[in-house]
Amino acid sequence: MNEFLFYLDIFGIIVFALSGALMAGRYQLDPFGVVVLASVTAVGGGTIRDVILQTPVFWVVKPYYLYVILATAVLTIVLIRQPKRIPKRFLLIADALGLALFAVLGTQKALYLGAPIPVAVVLGTITGVAGGMIRDVLCNVIPMILREEIYALAAMLGGSLFILLHWLGWSDNHAMIASISAALILRLAAIYWHVSLPAFHIVEKPSKEKPSKEKGIEKI
Amino acid sequence: MNEFLFYLDIFGIIVFALSGALMAGRYQLDPFGVVVLASVTAVGGGTIRDVILQTPVFWVVKPYYLYVILATAVLTIVLIRQPKRIPKRFLLIADALGLALFAVLGTQKALYLGAPIPVAVVLGTITGVAGGMIRDVLCNVIPMILREEIYALAAMLGGSLFILLHWLGWSDNHAMIASISAALILRLAAIYWHVSLPAFHIVEKPSKEKPSKEKGIEKI
Amino acid sequence: MNEFLFYLDIFGIIVFALSGALMAGRYQLDPFGVVVLASVTAVGGGTIRDVILQTPVFWVVKPYYLYVILATAVLTIVLIRQPKRIPKRFLLIADALGLALFAVLGTQKALYLGAPIPVAVVLGTITGVAGGMIRDVLCNVIPMILREEIYALAAMLGGSLFILLHWLGWSDNHAMIASISAALILRLAAIYWHVSLPAFHIVEKPSKEKPSKEKGIEKI
Repeated sequence: MNEFLFYLDIFGIIVFALSGALMAGRYQLDPFGVVVLASVTAVGGGTIRDVILQTPVFWVVKPYYLYVILATAVLTIVLIRQPKRIPKRFLLIADALGLALFAVLGTQKALYLGAPIPVAVVLGTITGVAGGMIRDVLCNVIPMILREEIYALAAMLGGSLFILLHWLGWSDNHAMIASISAALILRLAAIYWHVSLPAFHIVEKPSKEKPSKEKGIEKI
Repeated sequence: MNEFLFYLDIFGIIVFALSGALMAGRYQLDPFGVVVLASVTAVGGGTIRDVILQTPVFWVVKPYYLYVILATAVLTIVLIRQPKRIPKRFLLIADALGLALFAVLGTQKALYLGAPIPVAVVLGTITGVAGGMIRDVLCNVIPMILREEIYALAAMLGGSLFILLHWLGWSDNHAMIASISAALILRLAAIYWHVSLPAFHIVEKPSKEKPSKEKGIEKI
Repeated sequence: MNEFLFYLDIFGIIVFALSGALMAGRYQLDPFGVVVLASVTAVGGGTIRDVILQTPVFWVVKPYYLYVILATAVLTIVLIRQPKRIPKRFLLIADALGLALFAVLGTQKALYLGAPIPVAVVLGTITGVAGGMIRDVLCNVIPMILREEIYALAAMLGGSLFILLHWLGWSDNHAMIASISAALILRLAAIYWHVSLPAFHIVEKPSKEKPSKEKGIEKI
């Protein structure tokens, strides 16, 4: 990995760890809960990518990622005090940065390890979205990918554009800057102007099914 | 893999992708959310099976699975229009088909790769249920396996019957048709007549525990 | 694995399977739902650890773990009858035992397989907490690790103490007894006296965001 890739990667870990720590703050978790949520958000996507590719998991090989996450979680707790109110947008922006970075970096790693092009785009998307998905599922909210505007699309666009530019002969670093920027701009535009795609909507037929006997279990 | 197995496998991918896309329609997701939910439902179980068996993940080796899912998601969006109301049963039936197919196909793959018999049944069950489980968890509902009647039982029965028939000397294809049919009939019977097993039920002692200080966090 | 380790490991499987079965009882699941929830709780953490370490998954290699889980689930159903009320504490205590045992056993296995020290502590923590996390996510409640007092801390302490004592020259068995006891005592103390760490708390700025158009989808 060249130096530029290395810094992008660390930056992605930091912003995703930050998004996990901010989420933990909304749920009033104790410091260890903050570290746990920051960690799963930061390493979740890359871990699933590496496990599916059956290549050594990145943070097992390079434990310094764990220190970066720990430092980010601790700094978030120390620097963000209660009286200073944090708008929800901060969490969305940290998440968008991580999404754009990891979607492209994940695609690049998968390609580099010999994955076919569509598989590389899917694995890039997984790298970008899975950490945030686990964060949201643990906090019992519907993952952003299923409720935020232009989320999976931004990740897929980033990875696909990287592959296209790479194929057009751009250097890895330039292709990366361009495709990360494109994914990020698209996602930020969706956050600020609420640009959204038309929803696919199924109206349910009034059901004649007998009511559930189960208590405390939500029906579909 | 012989041709018959190949078509069964593709059919399983299609019905699970359909169940994910129908679920996405209930939650009014945008087209990319539909593709994401169709994908995790269709490949979730087989991916976990392959990762646990430490064999190359099927859709990484054969990317055409991804095109099948994409086509299914797009067709679902195009063909199912809002005015045409979809009863909830469609989702349950697509899920039942996928469950029966993948439970048996997963058991067969695990056996073929040398897993011991009980491990093969468990991996078959995982193949059949995990995709739908992830679909439901992402949508923040209790997974079908924990609230629908005769769900895990149908999967375990399918896998076990396949092993029994295989051991009795049936050909793979015949054993597969018989065991998939048995699992499917059992599950469909449970859907139509609400056949259910007696529930295991714990009554809680009135608690003297102090009320939770945490806000927005659901207690057990 | 020596005999002592073997019995600790089986005991951990039993208490986690019990915690899953007790949870299933609260949700009035049928017997197969009980077996499913007992299984994912008991093997979830170790499976993720082995997959990340890319070592053969323990229950695939040694299927007797599956019989132990099945027996525990069946015994729980048979022995715990409805009229006998079960306080919620039973579930918390079974979970605490499993947490302490698996955090230390997971750390030991990771170290033994050559993982660096911080990675071994993280993998030990994953082994201790992930099974219960999956159990809680499937039941649609926030995982204990994010809402119970001193949970991740107890797991990290157990693993770290084991490494320290090992480094100080203690025998594996003695180091294990001491570190499991320390983690367990800390966690039980948190359960009984509600000792907790100060929470990290973010106050939200009143939002000017437009209300969500989506129905049935919870916002962060």
